[in-house]
Amino acid sequence: MTTAYTTHLTEAVVDSLKGTADPRLSELLAALTRHLHAFVRETEPTMAEWEQAIDFLTATGQTCTDTRQEFVLLSDVLGVSMLVETINSDGRGDVTESTVLGPFHMTESPVRELGADIDLVGGGEPCVVSGRVLSRDGTPLPGAVLDVWQANAEGYYDVQQPEVQPPGNGRGLFTADAEGRFWFRTCVPSPYPIPTDGPVGDLLRATGRHPYRPAHIHFIASAEGHAPVTTHIFVAGSDHLDSDAVFAVKESLVQDFTETDDPSLAREFGVPNPFRHARFDLVLNPSRS
Amino acid sequence: MTTAYTTHLTEAVVDSLKGTADPRLSELLAALTRHLHAFVRETEPTMAEWEQAIDFLTATGQTCTDTRQEFVLLSDVLGVSMLVETINSDGRGDVTESTVLGPFHMTESPVRELGADIDLVGGGEPCVVSGRVLSRDGTPLPGAVLDVWQANAEGYYDVQQPEVQPPGNGRGLFTADAEGRFWFRTCVPSPYPIPTDGPVGDLLRATGRHPYRPAHIHFIASAEGHAPVTTHIFVAGSDHLDSDAVFAVKESLVQDFTETDDPSLAREFGVPNPFRHARFDLVLNPSRS
Repeated sequence: MTTAYTTHLTEAVVDSLKGTADPRLSELLAALTRHLHAFVRETEPTMAEWEQAIDFLTATGQTCTDTRQEFVLLSDVLGVSMLVETINSDGRGDVTESTVLGPFHMTESPVRELGADIDLVGGGEPCVVSGRVLSRDGTPLPGAVLDVWQANAEGYYDVQQPEVQPPGNGRGLFTADAEGRFWFRTCVPSPYPIPTDGPVGDLLRATGRHPYRPAHIHFIASAEGHAPVTTHIFVAGSDHLDSDAVFAVKESLVQDFTETDDPSLAREFGVPNPFRHARFDLVLNPSRS
Repeated sequence: MTTAYTTHLTEAVVDSLKGTADPRLSELLAALTRHLHAFVRETEPTMAEWEQAIDFLTATGQTCTDTRQEFVLLSDVLGVSMLVETINSDGRGDVTESTVLGPFHMTESPVRELGADIDLVGGGEPCVVSGRVLSRDGTPLPGAVLDVWQANAEGYYDVQQPEVQPPGNGRGLFTADAEGRFWFRTCVPSPYPIPTDGPVGDLLRATGRHPYRPAHIHFIASAEGHAPVTTHIFVAGSDHLDSDAVFAVKESLVQDFTETDDPSLAREFGVPNPFRHARFDLVLNPSRS
């Protein structure tokens, strides 16, 4: 039932925001009010449905800890994170595309030397990741910084398995060399389910959605005078590339992790032969001036 | 920046909901996705703004306890509660209008005899509340049940002041007599601020809004064969009637708490003379058949 009162109500709430000191906050809250009210008017939730929504949001907040961010997960599975990320991505020219940060960039990656193995535990399939950080015109970017994090071969991040993985497992902060090159060792990541033991897991079950993400390694690449990029490299051929639970796959981010049988290269990288080798460049836009 | 990817993304999320077993949940989530994405597309939040929103929602969830519901408060100050309540109100004929439940109906009201004093502590201005519960055609409804709750004269509910107020202070569950009449004693409620020491308080400060609600008593009236009503009675002349922090005031719900100098009536009700007297009927619609 839409009455004069309910129409007037939305404008009353928007009016009440007129004293907001920060004009951007005022704009965001007014738009939020209008869209939220439009959603309620369209769907006419019952009181019981409203109570369920309140309970769901409360449980989502209460599931968050220092090492778990259930609201980021909710934003992820509703495609909101990916939308915000894409809106904010630079989009100028043929540079590395961005994708979601995800909820596991919550501890600082340990500084590591180029060539270091970020798999501190072992047991996975050995892999070398190498490439260059370049400016859009192809100029190498010496001193570019790569923040890298990934799940282990069983699909868990260090913070999810403190009893099994030492802090910093699967993470590294690397500085590109004088020619903009980077290389490090790791294990090939696996597809993994996002955490399903909280409210977001209940939501996925209720919607018949699987919780899996295709195998990937996270990167934040940054370099002086350039716009940083938050992205993943996905493992070509991984399961779930066409149905990522968080909608983060972009075609250009899928890379071959090539089976490589080259004893001398293996020796050079310090990995057993044969090994998997992912080679790609990360390309950044110059900062807007 | 809106790209083909961001347009496609919304439909990808909506598509992913197709396996939802419950058709109503599917409808609600698809509409939520569309409205949420439309909000993001319109306002183009920065990553920092998105992070602030995540932090705000997390803090809101973590502020909730057994005796405090910060998400209800957030829904209230954004006018969402009032909108949902009004959409769900019956709206047929000239019956008592509904208003928000609010976050303080969280403990069971103790069963009390008609005439009981729900002010267990004293110190406020003595007051009698009386009236009848009627069906829409004026027929009295014997056995109608009234769930009543209110803040004390300082503006706090029992659950907010466990060290000062005994549980059940300001609350009562009354059964109307054979003629549908109810009466009880209490203190005149005061305007009060909604809790401002949490994220919702921060939001109100940032928007330059005051946190006050005009003085009121909460009621849920129910009777066999009738649609229950959740409402308040507001004290005529109270401050903030025109700027309720939760947008819950409807004209028809404002009632005189009349200064009454009538020693024999005071004796009858068991209150000191003079006293304040609020008299009104609660009128319910027959259930839809």
